[in-house]
Amino acid sequence: MPERARLFTQDDLSDGGVVELTANQAHYLRNVMRFQPGETVTLFNGRDGEWRGRVAALGKVRGQVEMEVRTRRQRDEPDLWLLFAPLKRGPMDILVQKAVELGASRLLPVLTERVNSTRINTARLTANAVEAAEQCERLTIPDISTAVSLGEVLSGWPAGRHLWICAETGASTPVGEAFGGGQIGGADAILVGPEGGFVNNELDVLNKLPFVTAVSLGPRILRAETAAMAALACYQAVLGDWRLPPRAELDQ
Amino acid sequence: MPERARLFTQDDLSDGGVVELTANQAHYLRNVMRFQPGETVTLFNGRDGEWRGRVAALGKVRGQVEMEVRTRRQRDEPDLWLLFAPLKRGPMDILVQKAVELGASRLLPVLTERVNSTRINTARLTANAVEAAEQCERLTIPDISTAVSLGEVLSGWPAGRHLWICAETGASTPVGEAFGGGQIGGADAILVGPEGGFVNNELDVLNKLPFVTAVSLGPRILRAETAAMAALACYQAVLGDWRLPPRAELDQ
Repeated sequence: MPERARLFTQDDLSDGGVVELTANQAHYLRNVMRFQPGETVTLFNGRDGEWRGRVAALGKVRGQVEMEVRTRRQRDEPDLWLLFAPLKRGPMDILVQKAVELGASRLLPVLTERVNSTRINTARLTANAVEAAEQCERLTIPDISTAVSLGEVLSGWPAGRHLWICAETGASTPVGEAFGGGQIGGADAILVGPEGGFVNNELDVLNKLPFVTAVSLGPRILRAETAAMAALACYQAVLGDWRLPPRAELDQ
Repeated sequence: MPERARLFTQDDLSDGGVVELTANQAHYLRNVMRFQPGETVTLFNGRDGEWRGRVAALGKVRGQVEMEVRTRRQRDEPDLWLLFAPLKRGPMDILVQKAVELGASRLLPVLTERVNSTRINTARLTANAVEAAEQCERLTIPDISTAVSLGEVLSGWPAGRHLWICAETGASTPVGEAFGGGQIGGADAILVGPEGGFVNNELDVLNKLPFVTAVSLGPRILRAETAAMAALACYQAVLGDWRLPPRAELDQ
């Protein structure tokens, strides 16, 4: 039976340790969830697994939780970046929420030629990511990077990381076939273009790079956030942690 | 180069034929898109492929388009139903839009034990589906069924159609492995449960049925609409029309 609340903390989690709640968390537990001291919550920090803790003190803007027992151990997660051109607020919120659920390890906004917006509210993206991770029982928060141009990303591309680009035009490999040729447990990244797609020059540059594979996502024209979700899901199914038995079995 | 507008019509589409615009379509072309008679639009009806037509007359609440040339032929699409428990308005809108993009052939709301809402606005679902199909260049609109109980759906289940259920608890097969054992070109359905999941009794009933396979979507707890999108994407990649070359090649 899950606890009534699951919270991300920056603090260390260890047997008998005490976690300081943020002002937002104290407000949420006290005023939204009507918690009383003595009730239990679930905590995770991306490093020490998942813990059950007991609320020791709860004020308007502060509170403390005492760790009781570790309920899940930290596990390796797929090393899968999602690179995306910034979208409008609604689709961007959806994209971030779903990318967290679907297990992207890093979210990296990339400025392409046709990008609609260059204003990125990193604090908002981070808050969305934390909330999604709390909800979906993930053990980590993805890194949220500041936006960079496509050229910068490519010129500093790390050795050994493969880049799968979702391309609606030009030569490409069906996504299942493409990921089927990938490396399980490898370092990967998925790039989805802006509304309107990449310009030809961008595709030319991308397709000449030795670490790039263009994948196709079928005959319909997907919105950018749909393409991102679809590619992440297919990746997890073929190369990622959806190949494993469901969590209930792993945690036993 | 796509036309500026792409519209779904109930009318037949044939060489030299004339299509009557609906009041909404006339309003959209005239007042939103500022069309003038003589400009061209794209039309589809789910039967006769995709056509380019020329606006012959355009009033405030009516208009006519004359067919000029068929630009794409009708093609078979995967026979893939999506069964889902009704969600709140926001997630339901997302689910319908994405299910259309991802190629579900029929959307069937199913009332489960833990369902949040039994009020389903079929007109709203249909309008969302039409808009999504117009946008994603799909050649059909999925059927939108009226809601039925899970028991009714199962007791009237059609012979030869396989049902893949997205289950967070109980025994299940990783989604890639499960679909890998499916039949390409077969009749299929995906069922996602409500927020809160199926009750045990529902899972017991489902898992005893010979046409049911429970699939798992990894270690994180996905929202219902995320699970639906993820399962549809994986299906299309493994068994559906994402196995094919991208559309540009098919249309040549």
